[in-house]
Amino acid sequence: MIHPTAKIGENISIGENVVIEENVIIGDHVTIGHHVVIKKDTMIGKNVQIGEQTVLGKSPSSNKKMKRKPEKDLEPLMINDHVVVGCNSVIYREVKLNTGVFIGDLASIREKVTIGEDSIIGRNVMVETNTKVGKRVTIQTGTYITADMIIEDEVFIGPCCSTSNDKYMGQGNFKHQGPIIRRGAKIGNNATLLPAVTIGENAIVGAGSVITKDVPAHKTIVGNPGRIIK
Amino acid sequence: MIHPTAKIGENISIGENVVIEENVIIGDHVTIGHHVVIKKDTMIGKNVQIGEQTVLGKSPSSNKKMKRKPEKDLEPLMINDHVVVGCNSVIYREVKLNTGVFIGDLASIREKVTIGEDSIIGRNVMVETNTKVGKRVTIQTGTYITADMIIEDEVFIGPCCSTSNDKYMGQGNFKHQGPIIRRGAKIGNNATLLPAVTIGENAIVGAGSVITKDVPAHKTIVGNPGRIIK
Amino acid sequence: MIHPTAKIGENISIGENVVIEENVIIGDHVTIGHHVVIKKDTMIGKNVQIGEQTVLGKSPSSNKKMKRKPEKDLEPLMINDHVVVGCNSVIYREVKLNTGVFIGDLASIREKVTIGEDSIIGRNVMVETNTKVGKRVTIQTGTYITADMIIEDEVFIGPCCSTSNDKYMGQGNFKHQGPIIRRGAKIGNNATLLPAVTIGENAIVGAGSVITKDVPAHKTIVGNPGRIIK
Repeated sequence: MIHPTAKIGENISIGENVVIEENVIIGDHVTIGHHVVIKKDTMIGKNVQIGEQTVLGKSPSSNKKMKRKPEKDLEPLMINDHVVVGCNSVIYREVKLNTGVFIGDLASIREKVTIGEDSIIGRNVMVETNTKVGKRVTIQTGTYITADMIIEDEVFIGPCCSTSNDKYMGQGNFKHQGPIIRRGAKIGNNATLLPAVTIGENAIVGAGSVITKDVPAHKTIVGNPGRIIK
Repeated sequence: MIHPTAKIGENISIGENVVIEENVIIGDHVTIGHHVVIKKDTMIGKNVQIGEQTVLGKSPSSNKKMKRKPEKDLEPLMINDHVVVGCNSVIYREVKLNTGVFIGDLASIREKVTIGEDSIIGRNVMVETNTKVGKRVTIQTGTYITADMIIEDEVFIGPCCSTSNDKYMGQGNFKHQGPIIRRGAKIGNNATLLPAVTIGENAIVGAGSVITKDVPAHKTIVGNPGRIIK
Repeated sequence: MIHPTAKIGENISIGENVVIEENVIIGDHVTIGHHVVIKKDTMIGKNVQIGEQTVLGKSPSSNKKMKRKPEKDLEPLMINDHVVVGCNSVIYREVKLNTGVFIGDLASIREKVTIGEDSIIGRNVMVETNTKVGKRVTIQTGTYITADMIIEDEVFIGPCCSTSNDKYMGQGNFKHQGPIIRRGAKIGNNATLLPAVTIGENAIVGAGSVITKDVPAHKTIVGNPGRIIK
């Protein structure tokens, strides 16, 4: 089902049972897999590939218990040229995927997130709202990127890392701040980053470490709690 | 495809290519996204929202190696009023989602599980069979809730936590028991809880901790292995 | 949509809106859930069950930043008799699922992977490319299996474990090697295994441990960093 208000480019390949809602814009040379759902207003550039069963442009919802209600009047999802999105993924409104970004299968990105040019978001990665990911960043499979986080250019985050943004764990009404990861830092697999820690430029966090304090630039930190080793 | 035996309420919004199997009951003011599959006997209350590509009412299956065979003759999946379910999620038969529950995208809940009123099950959370989650509980993104676990009211579990229920890791024929988390306890991100540990009322488990023994009420525990700090 | 070149066996149950592409072969007594996508060339044996919304036979893709480009001319996905695959899963070309394998919901397996007879790949498990899993292995929910890994017969891996294969985290052009887990070893939940470590026969890795060095056969190791305790 392609809504009559949708604008579809040339040389497009559209799979079976694809749903394209109102005001969607799709550029030339785009491939859309079977059973993809493209929600209203989504904008897709040229030479983009979307895998099967993926949902693009979802609006957030909430329940009574959630303190942080999703905003209304969100901008559309914008997918730039040469982006690749995997299968069974869910990407929200007001996400911007810059040119050449790769999103793996079974991943999800909440609203108000920007992913910089050529960055890789691995399979099964979840990105929360209001986070900025730089250019040429790699985030490997299964890592969790919390809300209100800053990831600068050329950062490498291994698989299964975990981050958080609320040191009072839902108890207080304090400002939430996720970790800040400076340019070129590398985070080993299954590391745990506490709220608001800064990982300095080119610093290295060992696999399985628990980072409770800021890590200076160019330092290596390992252990639980993390200790600087060089 | 809506099976002729299904009973559908009034003021319903049903997306494209939705499959509704035999004996499904759906209340008034329900929204069902594109490509949703609702398996036979599922009961959905009023003012419920189901996201795209989700499967409701799946029957469990198994292979030769699994010791714990899924039960037959399971009750239907019951979804009460004002529940919100995300996209690409999989919820089994004999799950009960009480009023106001929120289930994120890419989550899955096995059979014989109850989720209490207004609780939040985050994106990509997996809940195993035979577990009870209380009211106003928050389970954040990517956390794993094992089988045979008890989570009381107002518990907060951060993202990417891990739990287990089998201290012999498949070797013996012993009773399985998951962790027991008492009312108001808070668990930091990427914490690891061993089988059968009890986390006392309002206790706090630090991010990245490994909990091998019971934690008394109102205490804070951190580290690997976890040690009480206050 | 069933492509006219597909060969479908007898006593098949095919759900609504299933897409079967060219040259697919499906044996007798197979059940395929609603909205399943079976990509071209996939070969499915007898008595196989495929859950709703699953994608079979995906070809890998990449972006400019990925050093390891996926191979072309991959063999088809081969699914042997009596395999069970869950819902919303994504399995690539040149995967071989041997007889009796069980794949949970929301799981994904990359190309050039073999899973041995009767092994269990839990829900939300991600398996990377070029990895070999033996017979009667259990990999529980949410565990991450990196590329270039060897898992021998009868290994047990608990939930949420993490593995890695690149000790230079994307920095160098060195050979990648994932962990090697010898026959009968058991890994506790949320353990972290570093690149190229060998876990010896029947060794036991405690929950939450971080394994930085080889573990001898029959030993038990716990902690961060892991220390042998018996």
